[in-house]
Amino acid sequence: MTIELSQMSHDELSALLDEQRSLHAELEARGLTLDITRGKPSPRQLDLSRELLSMRVPRHAADGQDVRNYGGAKGLPEIRRIFAELLGVDVDHILAADNSSLAIMHDLLSFAMLHRLPGAEAPWFGRRIKFIAPVPGYDRHFSICEHLGIEMIPVEMGEHGPDMDEVERLASDPSVKGMWVVPMYANPNGVVYDEETARRLVSMDAAPDFRIWWDNAYALHHLTDAEPAPLPILQMAQEAGNPDRILMLASTSKITHAGDGVAFLASSTGNLDWYLKHSAVRSIGPDKVNQLRHALYLKDAEGVRALMRKHRALLAPKFQIVDTVLRRRLGGTGIARWTHPAGGYFVTLDVIDGTASRVVQLAKEAGIALTPAGSSHPLHDDPHDRTIRLAPSFPSEGELSAAMDGVATCVLLAAAEKLLS
Amino acid sequence: MTIELSQMSHDELSALLDEQRSLHAELEARGLTLDITRGKPSPRQLDLSRELLSMRVPRHAADGQDVRNYGGAKGLPEIRRIFAELLGVDVDHILAADNSSLAIMHDLLSFAMLHRLPGAEAPWFGRRIKFIAPVPGYDRHFSICEHLGIEMIPVEMGEHGPDMDEVERLASDPSVKGMWVVPMYANPNGVVYDEETARRLVSMDAAPDFRIWWDNAYALHHLTDAEPAPLPILQMAQEAGNPDRILMLASTSKITHAGDGVAFLASSTGNLDWYLKHSAVRSIGPDKVNQLRHALYLKDAEGVRALMRKHRALLAPKFQIVDTVLRRRLGGTGIARWTHPAGGYFVTLDVIDGTASRVVQLAKEAGIALTPAGSSHPLHDDPHDRTIRLAPSFPSEGELSAAMDGVATCVLLAAAEKLLS
Repeated sequence: MTIELSQMSHDELSALLDEQRSLHAELEARGLTLDITRGKPSPRQLDLSRELLSMRVPRHAADGQDVRNYGGAKGLPEIRRIFAELLGVDVDHILAADNSSLAIMHDLLSFAMLHRLPGAEAPWFGRRIKFIAPVPGYDRHFSICEHLGIEMIPVEMGEHGPDMDEVERLASDPSVKGMWVVPMYANPNGVVYDEETARRLVSMDAAPDFRIWWDNAYALHHLTDAEPAPLPILQMAQEAGNPDRILMLASTSKITHAGDGVAFLASSTGNLDWYLKHSAVRSIGPDKVNQLRHALYLKDAEGVRALMRKHRALLAPKFQIVDTVLRRRLGGTGIARWTHPAGGYFVTLDVIDGTASRVVQLAKEAGIALTPAGSSHPLHDDPHDRTIRLAPSFPSEGELSAAMDGVATCVLLAAAEKLLS
Repeated sequence: MTIELSQMSHDELSALLDEQRSLHAELEARGLTLDITRGKPSPRQLDLSRELLSMRVPRHAADGQDVRNYGGAKGLPEIRRIFAELLGVDVDHILAADNSSLAIMHDLLSFAMLHRLPGAEAPWFGRRIKFIAPVPGYDRHFSICEHLGIEMIPVEMGEHGPDMDEVERLASDPSVKGMWVVPMYANPNGVVYDEETARRLVSMDAAPDFRIWWDNAYALHHLTDAEPAPLPILQMAQEAGNPDRILMLASTSKITHAGDGVAFLASSTGNLDWYLKHSAVRSIGPDKVNQLRHALYLKDAEGVRALMRKHRALLAPKFQIVDTVLRRRLGGTGIARWTHPAGGYFVTLDVIDGTASRVVQLAKEAGIALTPAGSSHPLHDDPHDRTIRLAPSFPSEGELSAAMDGVATCVLLAAAEKLLS
């Protein structure tokens, strides 16, 4: 297809609509059940780390502690050392916890609601607290804020991060206490924050208890030969005179296994001590057996990098399929734009305004589950009803190809409906 | 020694004091480093489950879900089934989480501070909230309350539970919202709640958002041939018309490994749904690989019971040592009483009023770490300065014997000092 839909006559559009309706009906008749909703590793990706399921773990860590027993709140040095190197932080500034950086992000926020964060006048509960939420962004970040009654202020993402003039303006409001950032291969649009954006983020004026949840979920998740190192953000914050600004999160969820990985928090000594003080009331220590299992399996930073290249070999062709199918079906139509991320887990597909929910609905009828429209925005409110997140990692290549073809049909169908209405 | 110290003349007491001082000096000279502070399993106990460190875990649970991936918030049916049977609850009423029931207890309380618990008028944060705290009790329970600014009202423990007239009186106060209970082999005094006490607890009038944190940490941790089943407390609460009253906790921490076990929450559907609603914002699912590893290792309820008998074989002789040494050194002196628990992890040693902290201090000087005096009371305030918790599980039998002998010396020394002052 090479004519833009906006240039089509009424009859041409009607013909297109009929054609797509009939394709959609065929899809419905096939009874597909395809799911491209979440950034889940595929079974083949999980199989890369099959060794984890049968490894022999010694009883003691290198420092002699019995990994089977209580204690060791900061996590095992051997796993912290590997991720300190990968994330560009000092080993003293990183702690290793259980499965799921989401849990750490939640707990940091929950602790700040209940207890005075360093720099805060009082716990945040019951006060009007605002967070800066670059959009499109990660729905689970936004859910934590929504759940805790924290107001979110959307800021549009550009090519190298959010509109920083706007961010700086907002951060000068003392009731703005936090910001969500996915600095590399952002969920969902793949943006990589550049050094200038990062420098402005750590330097800008903000409340003393303002923190950035710097979610480095995809720091090592490259899809091309370029393997840029994560920004040395803790050091940058230190140099800018705001050492406590950054709460960096990471995990092995999309490196080894999604469900039984190890999560990390890297930050200033002040922030780590504060977190440990509160988490000590909650737990007598993380799962050190799993931490040691991971350290022995991954071996060192280079071991992780090598594993990530194997993930890339499985993932990159899927991103290629998304692009190929969308280009074949939607190229030149003028009704869709999509990202070409150099890493991460998602493609953002923008359709014509007011049709994203219709596309998701049509896809559902055709047996293709898409992330609900609006999910990339606070309170699920995409004011343009434009953005759809595609997660190509989980399905097989064949399923993905079928799903993307179906999605393209739905995009065309919804656009024709819209333009004819 | 067979004379009671209270019957001794001044000279006899002085002689005793000198004698114990010299024994204490000898202890100091030996440079011991013995630790009987915490209920930690010994390395030999952890070795019972050595299989866990090298087991091959399949990729899929019995219901087909990939245990390596995200999801499965309620935990794997196979591990829930085993503990449902052991704890006497319906499998639909139990969920399996990560390592540490302490974390679940904390989160339940933290969620209730931030979000409306069913029956509550509002979140608890910022309101005057009180908990009933049977004493002596578990310091980590009390720490959660202290940390969250919840007032604790101590109630003395009797032979079969706390003074229930007092508990009922307190529970009728609408600002009393919770209670800590360790129903079997209570930490630290080994009390087993009887059926009558339990019935009164589930039947008494209380605020609609009153809950009992029913910490069944030692339900399977018998030290004698008697292996009483846990009370069917969820059913009792249901029958009493208060189905939401009980939040039952348990874990494998003192069954398999202390640091990498599986924890459980058993409760009404209403409470479980409420917990899952809030924990879903925190986590995309527990470590199902470890849950499956545990289910395969433990096999079934009888597998757990058999393992617990092996623990007993290692633990019971240690409790015997505590009793033997204390009896030999302190029997007939009238200055100490201690418990003879039929299960659990602790012996409570009561010394003469006003000397518990002195005993802990003297022991510390002699290289023997004891749980700080007062730890068994809210805010570490034992009004009588009388109660010391002994945790005999971790040291070897030889170390334990030496430690108990040292403790006895400190008890005698502190008593002689006190009586001479």
